[in-house]
Amino acid sequence: MPLFYPTWKVGKGLHALGTHLLVELRDCNAEIIKDLKKVKNILVSAAKEAKATIVDISFHEFNPFGISGMVIIAESHLSIHTWPEYAYAAVDIFTCGDIIKPEVAASYLIQQFESKSPSIVELKRGILSQQTNERLPHKITDPQLEYV
Amino acid sequence: MPLFYPTWKVGKGLHALGTHLLVELRDCNAEIIKDLKKVKNILVSAAKEAKATIVDISFHEFNPFGISGMVIIAESHLSIHTWPEYAYAAVDIFTCGDIIKPEVAASYLIQQFESKSPSIVELKRGILSQQTNERLPHKITDPQLEYV
Repeated sequence: MPLFYPTWKVGKGLHALGTHLLVELRDCNAEIIKDLKKVKNILVSAAKEAKATIVDISFHEFNPFGISGMVIIAESHLSIHTWPEYAYAAVDIFTCGDIIKPEVAASYLIQQFESKSPSIVELKRGILSQQTNERLPHKITDPQLEYV
Repeated sequence: MPLFYPTWKVGKGLHALGTHLLVELRDCNAEIIKDLKKVKNILVSAAKEAKATIVDISFHEFNPFGISGMVIIAESHLSIHTWPEYAYAAVDIFTCGDIIKPEVAASYLIQQFESKSPSIVELKRGILSQQTNERLPHKITDPQLEYV
């Protein structure tokens, strides 16, 4: 019998401020992930599919090929970097709150980029409490509570 | 004796297209991470410290407080999301190539945001080969090699 019981329970999961999906898109359609306009439209659509609120968009094409892009959303961000020469794209979907569905965005991207060998790792970011019954809101709405 | 020996060797590490640092900045100076101008300047300076080539910058302040920001660099990106009410900031530093030093950027950010309890996890992104002797370049420079 252990001397110390942790306050959190295995299997319940810890509360965190953010959810971060690391999406590895291997064996994509290289013609799609080398096209700036297509990559941009697909990432923006993925944000909308996940019910995100888009704040800013920035996409850039590199020489000889490869796209980097960001969609800043009110709930955090989506990012992509593509290597058409390897048919590979690295996507990050960082979200906060309970309304947005990052997994919907991930599924959409896998489908649209035609990745035949995708993988997703889900991370929690900002685990600040070991109390499973303590909910950490995305943003405190009452400024009175600031720095409690 | 195992029937199958993997072609990669333990401890040598696998070659990847990108290096991704997940930086958890806990117990920051809340006055700094709630200040849009300061957060922006610090992240831009971190990119410069790491010898990155800045391509685009986008920072936004949320109500009642909290900053989201992106620095797109030729070598991928830096991102930040701050929760001043929890003295917490989540930073991602995604880089490609051998010249840039993401760990320098991470150290700089820890120092500038005065994080008393930081942590860093280093991930590899785009592990496409099991051959440790095969170097994967950031970008192929000869278009003839496209889609080999």
